[in-house]
Amino acid sequence: MTLKTPLDMIRWNADGLVPVIAQDHADGCVLMVAWMNREALARTLEIGEAVYWSRSRARLWHKGESSGHVQVVHDLRLDCDRDVILLKVEQKGGIACHTGRRHCFYHQYRDGEWVEVDPVLKDPAAIYGEEAPSHGR
Amino acid sequence: MTLKTPLDMIRWNADGLVPVIAQDHADGCVLMVAWMNREALARTLEIGEAVYWSRSRARLWHKGESSGHVQVVHDLRLDCDRDVILLKVEQKGGIACHTGRRHCFYHQYRDGEWVEVDPVLKDPAAIYGEEAPSHGR
Repeated sequence: MTLKTPLDMIRWNADGLVPVIAQDHADGCVLMVAWMNREALARTLEIGEAVYWSRSRARLWHKGESSGHVQVVHDLRLDCDRDVILLKVEQKGGIACHTGRRHCFYHQYRDGEWVEVDPVLKDPAAIYGEEAPSHGR
Repeated sequence: MTLKTPLDMIRWNADGLVPVIAQDHADGCVLMVAWMNREALARTLEIGEAVYWSRSRARLWHKGESSGHVQVVHDLRLDCDRDVILLKVEQKGGIACHTGRRHCFYHQYRDGEWVEVDPVLKDPAAIYGEEAPSHGR
């Protein structure tokens, strides 16, 4: 008999991943969505900062490893279907998005089109140097 | 030449779906995550209430169609990678989860296990009658 671990409770998808929502613990702003595999979640629990699985780079991604914009985990939640994780975090530097914005959801639907409504707080080139990512995950 | 519509801007996955976060527009509570296809999003835009694609039932799912707990859309956002939608909604009835809770993220990670920390506000049998769903989506 094998005892189930908390990680076994999660319904990982066919690729062994679950989507993860990062939300500001203080004001509830939804910052971003990324993915975790078992190893990423185990590492997140170990260090208390968000570690995702980068699908594009196919490796663990300690959020903030390049930018310094780490996410300190205050609360970790799992939904009723056990296939989505919600992290309530303190976003260091106040910038979660690779575009230099506070959060990733800056396209707003208005009158039939997507409009960029949230400001860039810092030039990505200044955040990442020459290694500015073309996308976040 | 074909003009791109706002729905063409979205990077639908291989199944033609995107994950959608529903968030309370007033206090920022993350209520649930579900999925939309093009038809679900078009219908959402048309009626101003959340319409998802139910993967388990393989049909459009007008949230609240059984329970009356519809979600009135106040703001519709798309993320930087254009593959996640964020809906800011007014949750009618104050219950988003099929378990009768306000939101779906009621499992909290504590001392190595998942603990149910949020109360059931209404018995699902009272919400759905005999057609209580075994899961939300």
